[in-house]
Amino acid sequence: MKPTGPIPPGFAADASGELLIGGEPAGALVAQAGDTPLFVYDMAAIRTRLRQLRAAMPPELALHYAMKANPYPALLERIVSEVDGLDVASAGEMRAALEAGMPPSFISFAGPGKRDREIEAAILGGVTLNLESEGEAERALAAGKRLDRQPRLAIRVNPDFGLRGSGMRMGGGARPFGIDAERVPALVRRLIAAGVDWRGFHIFAGSQALDAAAIIEAQAATLALAGQLADEARAAPPEVNIGGGFGVPYFNGDVAVDIGAVGAALSQALRARAAILADTRFAMELGRWIVAEAGVYLTRIVDRKTSRGETYLVTDGGLHHQLAASGNFGTVVRRNYPIAVAGRFDAVPDDEVSVVGCLCTPLDRLGDQVLLPRAGPGDLIAIFLAGAYGATASPQAFLGHPAVRELLVDETFRS
Amino acid sequence: MKPTGPIPPGFAADASGELLIGGEPAGALVAQAGDTPLFVYDMAAIRTRLRQLRAAMPPELALHYAMKANPYPALLERIVSEVDGLDVASAGEMRAALEAGMPPSFISFAGPGKRDREIEAAILGGVTLNLESEGEAERALAAGKRLDRQPRLAIRVNPDFGLRGSGMRMGGGARPFGIDAERVPALVRRLIAAGVDWRGFHIFAGSQALDAAAIIEAQAATLALAGQLADEARAAPPEVNIGGGFGVPYFNGDVAVDIGAVGAALSQALRARAAILADTRFAMELGRWIVAEAGVYLTRIVDRKTSRGETYLVTDGGLHHQLAASGNFGTVVRRNYPIAVAGRFDAVPDDEVSVVGCLCTPLDRLGDQVLLPRAGPGDLIAIFLAGAYGATASPQAFLGHPAVRELLVDETFRS
Repeated sequence: MKPTGPIPPGFAADASGELLIGGEPAGALVAQAGDTPLFVYDMAAIRTRLRQLRAAMPPELALHYAMKANPYPALLERIVSEVDGLDVASAGEMRAALEAGMPPSFISFAGPGKRDREIEAAILGGVTLNLESEGEAERALAAGKRLDRQPRLAIRVNPDFGLRGSGMRMGGGARPFGIDAERVPALVRRLIAAGVDWRGFHIFAGSQALDAAAIIEAQAATLALAGQLADEARAAPPEVNIGGGFGVPYFNGDVAVDIGAVGAALSQALRARAAILADTRFAMELGRWIVAEAGVYLTRIVDRKTSRGETYLVTDGGLHHQLAASGNFGTVVRRNYPIAVAGRFDAVPDDEVSVVGCLCTPLDRLGDQVLLPRAGPGDLIAIFLAGAYGATASPQAFLGHPAVRELLVDETFRS
Repeated sequence: MKPTGPIPPGFAADASGELLIGGEPAGALVAQAGDTPLFVYDMAAIRTRLRQLRAAMPPELALHYAMKANPYPALLERIVSEVDGLDVASAGEMRAALEAGMPPSFISFAGPGKRDREIEAAILGGVTLNLESEGEAERALAAGKRLDRQPRLAIRVNPDFGLRGSGMRMGGGARPFGIDAERVPALVRRLIAAGVDWRGFHIFAGSQALDAAAIIEAQAATLALAGQLADEARAAPPEVNIGGGFGVPYFNGDVAVDIGAVGAALSQALRARAAILADTRFAMELGRWIVAEAGVYLTRIVDRKTSRGETYLVTDGGLHHQLAASGNFGTVVRRNYPIAVAGRFDAVPDDEVSVVGCLCTPLDRLGDQVLLPRAGPGDLIAIFLAGAYGATASPQAFLGHPAVRELLVDETFRS
């Protein structure tokens, strides 16, 4: 038997023992969507999450959503009225953000390989470009001239420190992202001299960190760096995006970020910030942390089979929808996400099984030797933490299966 | 500097030094397709490959294409007239195989999570189902009755041995695939008694093996097992699919499979086969080996930047098209695929760079500290071995970039 990650808070069973998602039984949601496999996103859970975040963070801190985590249109449309900005990573995401109703001045566009036509679209749309290199800065200046528009430009800074314990280090040392901190003041002066609307800094040190102390340390360093760069450039940044980096507990032993501790430390750090940052708008950018726990992937068991003493539950889903849960995206050692039998959510688990997908590859494993209540064909398997980096971060076309379904449950829109 | 895999045979430069794919300069192919990123597949290279395979293998061996490796419609349409059968892994692939013109009796459908409607579609289409469990067998029998059709059913066998040195072991021990060999004879008798068209066995021991000796050993064991199972069932299998398993050299130090040695040994093994297999049709199923080397992924450099002493070529492509090349699909340690600057294919490499994609994640790396001729914005990067498990095996929707282009070059269709 191998351990599974902790089931996120807020999930419970109805009287019959069936898993409720956003107040609805899993089976009813599948019936509503028409079929499995299905991603269900609970908008109320996202709102709760954001409320907790606002309560923990300094009131002046703007909260941005990094839409790469989950760009599902119905979710995006609603999240727009819950956050203070959207961070996008392509012209396609930018269009979706604008269509969802976010004003362009609260959209920023980061990404190391922006093509000229993406830069032009951002300038025409009035969106802030987070510049990833001096070369990109020159291309943005040229595009502004070509289009006769004043571009809104921020500088993505590659800090000289990383985020300790982060799943992905995005700063410190050599990086493809952003401009090395030591070269940033010169670029600020170049942008201001060129007459653009310089928006400030975007400093992102890492992602998927669970340790509050590490996040606190990185945020303090980020504020210090922003002040230092502004002083060197002799220019006050209108905005500083301090990045995100809050992880969620996917695996056994993982513990949620102590956002209260992070917020308290950030309040203190903001109070102690450099004088030149007095009027700066500070934003935090989170994707995964906001949406991951609000999503559940539901897949139906097609077959229960044994092979040489091991039992397999074969489902109609798989890594083509849940690449990360299968252990094949950015992880070295495969570990189990939290998993349950949706119809027997409150039953005692006493059956050791491996839950596999329908793809013809040994990589397609959703639960490896996990303990579940006994289940068989027709039963629904729930994989938790499916709200971020699921449908769009998986190779959906692999092996020619139909597109996965997605469904947003939003209680506020019920009678 | 880190090594790269060997560039597959057959690639050369034109007089100006530009990489030719299927006789066409890379830049002209991009112009024809309209833009980068672009997968180019060379049909002539695929035909050459199949010719070499036929020459090496026993003449009576049927050659099947596992279309999951690359289901691009124009490629599939042409490959149908070059091979003796297609292996599909979903109802979607089955439809594509039929539309490409393969007669249903030469299509077999394997996959551990077939749903009832997929089983019904296969029976109605006259396609052979490779049964993955006794439960699936019963569902197929029931579907045949419901539809009043005689199903074509083969049994996928989980052998009691694996393929040594294979990238993915698909046999030996407990597996989600197929039916444990020791239970197969009883199922054969059950199928025959039920009056179905029993087609024989599908025995697949592993994939992506480069060592001819290991493949020879697995094939001999496969033939022995087929004979033993047939004897125990007292039924001669009309067909035996002996699987594939031939790898291609992706990485530095990899050496191509010695297909001459494999073919010679297989001829001998077939001559020595059990008497009950005298009239059996033997098929080999290959996907990657047939198409991988015929494909090149072309992506344009958008930015050349340095960060703390390291140089990055930032391209408009990335892991959303080339997940495996980025090291994030089924590999534990990231290694470099063969890579080149398309416009300077014959130039001396003297510039150490990392080639990254346009996605905002450190996972998006196509070449890590590789040595290339100097290149910058506008130049095309070529990643080789892109003919298999590329476009469909990657998370294309990730970060909202446009769909990748694909282009088949087929010289036989030129004047």
